[in-house]
Amino acid sequence: MLKFTNNFFFYKKNKKNNSIIKIINDVKNYGDNSLKYYIKKIDGLSVDNIKNIILKTNILKKSYKKLIIKKKKIIKEIFLRLKRYHFHFFLNSWQIKNKYLYYGQKNSVIEKICIYVPGGATIYPSSIFMNSIPALIYKPKKIIMITPVKKGLISNLILSISYLCNIKKIILSGGAHTVCSIVYGTKTIEKMNKIVGPGNIFVTESKKILFGNIGIDMLAGPSELLILCEDNIKPKIIINDFFSQLEHDKCAISYLLSNNRIYLEKIYNIIYKKIKNQINKKIIFNSLNNSFLIFNNLFNLLKIINFFSPEHTMICLKYFKKILKFIKNSGTIFLNYKTSVSYGDYYIGPSHVIPTNKTSKFFSSLNLNDFCKKINLIVVNNNLNSKILSSFFSKKEKFNSHSFSSIFR
Amino acid sequence: MLKFTNNFFFYKKNKKNNSIIKIINDVKNYGDNSLKYYIKKIDGLSVDNIKNIILKTNILKKSYKKLIIKKKKIIKEIFLRLKRYHFHFFLNSWQIKNKYLYYGQKNSVIEKICIYVPGGATIYPSSIFMNSIPALIYKPKKIIMITPVKKGLISNLILSISYLCNIKKIILSGGAHTVCSIVYGTKTIEKMNKIVGPGNIFVTESKKILFGNIGIDMLAGPSELLILCEDNIKPKIIINDFFSQLEHDKCAISYLLSNNRIYLEKIYNIIYKKIKNQINKKIIFNSLNNSFLIFNNLFNLLKIINFFSPEHTMICLKYFKKILKFIKNSGTIFLNYKTSVSYGDYYIGPSHVIPTNKTSKFFSSLNLNDFCKKINLIVVNNNLNSKILSSFFSKKEKFNSHSFSSIFR
Repeated sequence: MLKFTNNFFFYKKNKKNNSIIKIINDVKNYGDNSLKYYIKKIDGLSVDNIKNIILKTNILKKSYKKLIIKKKKIIKEIFLRLKRYHFHFFLNSWQIKNKYLYYGQKNSVIEKICIYVPGGATIYPSSIFMNSIPALIYKPKKIIMITPVKKGLISNLILSISYLCNIKKIILSGGAHTVCSIVYGTKTIEKMNKIVGPGNIFVTESKKILFGNIGIDMLAGPSELLILCEDNIKPKIIINDFFSQLEHDKCAISYLLSNNRIYLEKIYNIIYKKIKNQINKKIIFNSLNNSFLIFNNLFNLLKIINFFSPEHTMICLKYFKKILKFIKNSGTIFLNYKTSVSYGDYYIGPSHVIPTNKTSKFFSSLNLNDFCKKINLIVVNNNLNSKILSSFFSKKEKFNSHSFSSIFR
Repeated sequence: MLKFTNNFFFYKKNKKNNSIIKIINDVKNYGDNSLKYYIKKIDGLSVDNIKNIILKTNILKKSYKKLIIKKKKIIKEIFLRLKRYHFHFFLNSWQIKNKYLYYGQKNSVIEKICIYVPGGATIYPSSIFMNSIPALIYKPKKIIMITPVKKGLISNLILSISYLCNIKKIILSGGAHTVCSIVYGTKTIEKMNKIVGPGNIFVTESKKILFGNIGIDMLAGPSELLILCEDNIKPKIIINDFFSQLEHDKCAISYLLSNNRIYLEKIYNIIYKKIKNQINKKIIFNSLNNSFLIFNNLFNLLKIINFFSPEHTMICLKYFKKILKFIKNSGTIFLNYKTSVSYGDYYIGPSHVIPTNKTSKFFSSLNLNDFCKKINLIVVNNNLNSKILSSFFSKKEKFNSHSFSSIFR
């Protein structure tokens, strides 16, 4: 049941820790053999040789060539739009030089990237774009992709988009076992430096456990949308967005905030009328359980937004520019009612890999920064001041060899 | 024993997982009472009220005022140098606008920052600078500090530097229990959004377990230095740096790489002669166990650097500029033999909170980026193209409500 409240909802994680730790230890120790075992056990797929579930560039290229021109045109346009957006984040290395000192920062790409693209029930071609395009810009040595595939079938569109995104290999298997294989490497699978992209609860838990052995982007929870709206927006428009978020899966969450109680009550009634027309109504009906309509004054509603720190925030207010500066935490903000969240999800530019579950208080959505390390560079042409300043601290910290090394050069 | 080899060394973590999970659950559930219990049990300190171990700005200010002018001048100079360096990383928000579209990125500071400063055996005033200065630049709402203190004593210098760095509160307790208290909050301790700074193995493990509930910087291991040098550098200089790294603690690591075997053998002998003159010789003798002298040709040595991805790399070669582009992974690079690693550790500019244990393959040293989220902004003024592009994907992904919401607006 959809709740009508001004209380908060807390998402609780389902911990499957122990079984995941077992999978990780097995794959780490027994490599390919263990991976084959888990592919059989979890995905129900018998694999003789891990090589059989790896697709290489030549196959991707063939698929891309087969694609009809109309589709090619669309995916190319989306590709370019996303790339153009992410280029704005580009940072050059820099150096500063004077008589005594030369220092700076060298931007160095993370060499081996793995993207995780969910799959199974349906295909998610847009996720390939959203994960790999920010990675592409600094030109890493290699991008590979792991994705679970139902019954060993994979769509032509998935392969074509992967080719466009310069993905070198697709491993047709998902879950904690495949994530672990790219962290430690096996005989057939190469070790990677960073994995990005959301997966199910097993994938997220395994990313958390393996964090530090590999770089990760963030820990993804269920998708969220918060809509803050005035009463002059047609309920139909608001409800379409409300439903579009809820159809992701049964854990998805939509919030609708307004300072007009009557308007909210109206929407509440229309939701139950409209839900039967939705094709994914079963999922929407389930995820409606997590959702809230919240009535309060604007000042408190803004506080609630910053508390929830939603993945997507939609501001349907006439004076959105005045409001914007008060929103401190959110992944992506859509600033008028004309901007459907699906535009942002699919083609505008920002990645749809966005922090959820209140983590946008400290995470950003996937961007260039996630694929580039900053290395500090230092040259000092010895001078007295260096010795004084550095030995001030080394004496206090009882690091005497530090003092020696700074003074006797 | 110092080993003379061209094999690699792997650091293995000492897992104390279960006891840390217990501590975390206790502090999460029982707040201040549990915190008091662990402060008694782990730090051996009886505390009636948690408020008694919290220092506020007024006390820090008093300490700062008491500081002699000479010291004040030195810490102010270091403060300004570090701040100047980090300003180079500053990024503005940006927006792009055209007829159909308005998009951009809003840089938003992470509001509540906690820095962890190790303590106990000695004091680490420099760590306050290194953790808090990159945070200061975007002006967060609040920076607090947690640090373990031996026998309840805390140095005047620590307090003064904290005042200079605009730290609002110091909680005089460290370890997993205190880390947990700032993640979930207790009656007296406020919840924070991000914790940065290295600690001991318990702190690192608890940061990893709590990651996602709070933002963290990186997972720190023992300190490392790799020196790549030619045979024309005085052994004395190289050995001073070699020792300075090893005195950090008994897990610290130094590598010395050269393409001249005779030179390395010479250094090997001098190390054992010089070690007795070092004041921290006990620690250095222990950490010598983890260290290596590696002889090989330059091509292979560069490969070894990228494999080890050391925290500090010192390049003592005449033609360092030619070499630099081949180094893909390292935290900070010192580019001539005159640049003592302690200069970088204490005053030059970059933070000395640097990724260790091969993680500089995907982590950067602490910088402005760690304290700022990037929020995407989108406004679309509806047009046909939006509908075509976004519904292309939503149809493929069987998200029908997405299609509705993009088409019927």
